[in-house]
Amino acid sequence: MERATLAIWKERVENELDRVVMFWTKYSHDSQHGGFFTCLTKEGHVYDDLKYVWLQGRQVWMYCRLYRKLQRFHWPEILDAAKAGGEFLIRHARVAPPAKKCAFVLTRDGRPAKVQRTIFSECFYTMAMDELWRATGDPRYQKEAVEMMDQIVYWVRVDPTGLGQPQLSGTVKADPMAVPMMLLNLVDQLGEDDDVMSRKYWELGEWCTENILKHLQRDGKVVLENVTVDGKEIPGCLGRQQNPGHALEAGWFLLRHAIRQRDAERKALIIEKFILQPFQSGWDTENGGIFYFQDADKFCPTQLEWDMKLWWPHNEAMIAFLMSYNETRDPMLLQLFCQVAEYAFEKFSDPEHGEWYGYLNREGKVVLNFKGGPFKGCFHVPRCLYMCEELFKALLMTS
Amino acid sequence: MERATLAIWKERVENELDRVVMFWTKYSHDSQHGGFFTCLTKEGHVYDDLKYVWLQGRQVWMYCRLYRKLQRFHWPEILDAAKAGGEFLIRHARVAPPAKKCAFVLTRDGRPAKVQRTIFSECFYTMAMDELWRATGDPRYQKEAVEMMDQIVYWVRVDPTGLGQPQLSGTVKADPMAVPMMLLNLVDQLGEDDDVMSRKYWELGEWCTENILKHLQRDGKVVLENVTVDGKEIPGCLGRQQNPGHALEAGWFLLRHAIRQRDAERKALIIEKFILQPFQSGWDTENGGIFYFQDADKFCPTQLEWDMKLWWPHNEAMIAFLMSYNETRDPMLLQLFCQVAEYAFEKFSDPEHGEWYGYLNREGKVVLNFKGGPFKGCFHVPRCLYMCEELFKALLMTS
Repeated sequence: MERATLAIWKERVENELDRVVMFWTKYSHDSQHGGFFTCLTKEGHVYDDLKYVWLQGRQVWMYCRLYRKLQRFHWPEILDAAKAGGEFLIRHARVAPPAKKCAFVLTRDGRPAKVQRTIFSECFYTMAMDELWRATGDPRYQKEAVEMMDQIVYWVRVDPTGLGQPQLSGTVKADPMAVPMMLLNLVDQLGEDDDVMSRKYWELGEWCTENILKHLQRDGKVVLENVTVDGKEIPGCLGRQQNPGHALEAGWFLLRHAIRQRDAERKALIIEKFILQPFQSGWDTENGGIFYFQDADKFCPTQLEWDMKLWWPHNEAMIAFLMSYNETRDPMLLQLFCQVAEYAFEKFSDPEHGEWYGYLNREGKVVLNFKGGPFKGCFHVPRCLYMCEELFKALLMTS
Repeated sequence: MERATLAIWKERVENELDRVVMFWTKYSHDSQHGGFFTCLTKEGHVYDDLKYVWLQGRQVWMYCRLYRKLQRFHWPEILDAAKAGGEFLIRHARVAPPAKKCAFVLTRDGRPAKVQRTIFSECFYTMAMDELWRATGDPRYQKEAVEMMDQIVYWVRVDPTGLGQPQLSGTVKADPMAVPMMLLNLVDQLGEDDDVMSRKYWELGEWCTENILKHLQRDGKVVLENVTVDGKEIPGCLGRQQNPGHALEAGWFLLRHAIRQRDAERKALIIEKFILQPFQSGWDTENGGIFYFQDADKFCPTQLEWDMKLWWPHNEAMIAFLMSYNETRDPMLLQLFCQVAEYAFEKFSDPEHGEWYGYLNREGKVVLNFKGGPFKGCFHVPRCLYMCEELFKALLMTS
C-alpha cells in the first residue's frame, strides 16, 4: 500500500519537475546580459526586467544542482545558463567592490537599484558559487563562495557594522530565526562530501542549531520567529509572530543536519516540535492550505497577507514530511505528505504552462496569477520536487 | 429627493462619527506617557504598545480639529489628550534633536525604534502642531509646525541628503505622488484663514499642484503613482503602478486647492481625471469595493494585497464625491457618494464596538479584525465623517 503511494507520487513529482524546468529554461534566460528574468506572467512573458539578487543566486544554484544530480537535466544549456548567471553575479552583485555587500535588486544590465541591510543576498550568492564550483570544477567559484561565507559569518558573529543597520535606543535586539537557518543551510551546502569544509564549519553548525532551537518557546509549545539574543520572548506583535512554513523549513534544515550528525534524540525532537506542531497550528482545517502568519496569542496578525496560502510553505512541508517519513517510516508522516501535496498539486500547479502559481487567497483561489515575481523565482518548487524525487528513489530502493 | 438623501446621510455620518470618537477616546489614551495606543483589537484591547509617529500626529490633528470645529466634541478631555500627544511628540519624535529627522516608530515611553528615510513622519508632526496651535492658541506649537515645514520643504526642493536615502547608479529617480500630495495638504493646513501663511506657501502650492498633475499620464487616461522627475512614464511595475484610493485622495486635495483659488477649469479637470476616472478603474464591479493596487497595462500587481478592499480608499472616495457634488450639484456625483458609502457602512462599520474594520478580502469579508494597527489609527474614518458632516450641512443650507 505505502509502496504504491510512493511509486505514484514519485512519478507525479518527476513529471511536475519536468514541466517546471521547461518553464524556466524557455522563458527566463537573459541571453544578452546573463542572469535571469524572474518577473514572468503565467504564460512566461516578462512583465519587469529587474534582477533580484536572491532569485539570481537561487536559480544558479538550482540549475547546477539539477545538472549535477539528475541525469535527465545534464544539459549543456542548463550549465551554460547557470555559468552566465554566476558571472553576472560576480560582475554586478557587489555594490562597491571589493567590499562584499551585495545589492538586493539590480537593473537588467547589472546596476544596483536597492540594497538591504541584511545578509541574505550574500547568502544566496554563496549558495550559487559553491554549487557552480561543484558543477564546473572551476576553483574560482569555490573561492568566491568561501570568501563571501567568511564575510557573512563575520557580520553575524563578530561585527555587523558593515551591514549598515542603524542603532537606535528603542530597537529591540531581536534575533530573527532566518539568520541561523540560512547559515545552517550554507554549512550543509559547503560541507557536502567535503571533510575539510565540514570540519571548518562544524562549530558554526552547532551555533546555528542552538540559535534555531532557542526559537522554540513556551515550554516547547510554539516556534516564534523573533526572540531576544539570550532566547527570551519579546513582547508585542514582533515577539508573538509565527510563520508555520518557515518553521517547517527550519525543521528540515535541522533534521538534515541531525541526520548527518546521527543524533537520534535530536531528530525526534525536531520532527515533533518543528514539523508536526507548526503544521498542526498552521494548517487551515476549513479550507486546506497553510496560513502565512499567525500570532501565538491568537490575536489577528498585522500582516495584510496573513491568511493567504503561499506556494513555498507547501513546498517546505512536503520536504519536511517526506524526509521525516524516510527517517522514521511512520505512515502518519507519509499521509501528511500526501495531504499537503494533494492540496499543492491541485491548487498551485499549472499543467498547461508549467511552474506553479504562488499566491492563493484563504479559500485557495489564485489571487496573483504570475509564475515569477520579486520574491518567486526558480527555487522553492523545483528544489522541493527534486528533493522529493530523490527521497522517493531512496524509499523505493529500501522499502 | 436629493435633499432627503442629504438629510439621511447627514444623520448616518453624524451617528457614525459619534461611535468612532467614542472608541478612540475610550481605549487609545496612554495616560502614563501621553500619546496614543493604536494597536487595538475590535473590542479596543491593546495588543501592542508601539507608537507609530504618523498615527500619533494624525490623532493629535484629528482631536484638535473635532474640538475646534464641532461643538459636540468641544470636550476638555479631547483637548487634553491632544496636548498630551503633542507634548509626547515634541519630547520624543526627533531621533537626534535638535536635528529634525523624526522616527517612524517609538516605544511606548518614546525611544526611537525605527526610522524611515522619507518625509512623512515629519509631515504628520507638522499637521499635528499646526492644528494644536489653532486649538490652544499656544504659539509654541505654531513655531514647531513652521520650523518642521521649512525643514521638509528644504529636503524636498533643495537637498535630500538629511533623509539618508542611498544613491545607487541603478535606482530610477522616481517621483512618488505622495510627496506633492502631502505637501499640498500641509499648504492648505498652514494657510487656513491665515493670509500671511497663505502668501508664504502660495508658490509651494503651485509647485505641488504641477507635481501632482504630472502623474496624469497616457493622454490623460491614467494616474500613475510614480513618474520621472520630468514627468515621463517609468518602465516596469514601479511605473505602471496605480492606487485608485490614493488618486481619489489626491483628487480632493487638488479640488480643495482649486476651490480656494477659484479655478473653474482646473476643478472640472480634477473631477474627471483624478476622481471619476480612478474610481471607474478601481471599483470592483463584481463584488463592490475599491481595489488597493492596479497595473496600468492590466498585468497582475506584485503586491500580495492588491485585490483587498482597504477602509481608507473608501473614505477618500466619499470625501471626493461629496466635495465634487457640492461644487457641481451633478446628481451622478451624489449617487456615487451613496454607492461607496453604502458599501463602506455595510462592510467596514462595527455598530457594536465602534470604529471601522480596515481590511476586507476581495469579496468584502473582514480579514484583519482589529480596529487599529501599525497603519490604521484615529484618522481616515473620522476625518471622512467629519468632512462629510460639514459638507452635508453646507449642502442642506443652500439646497
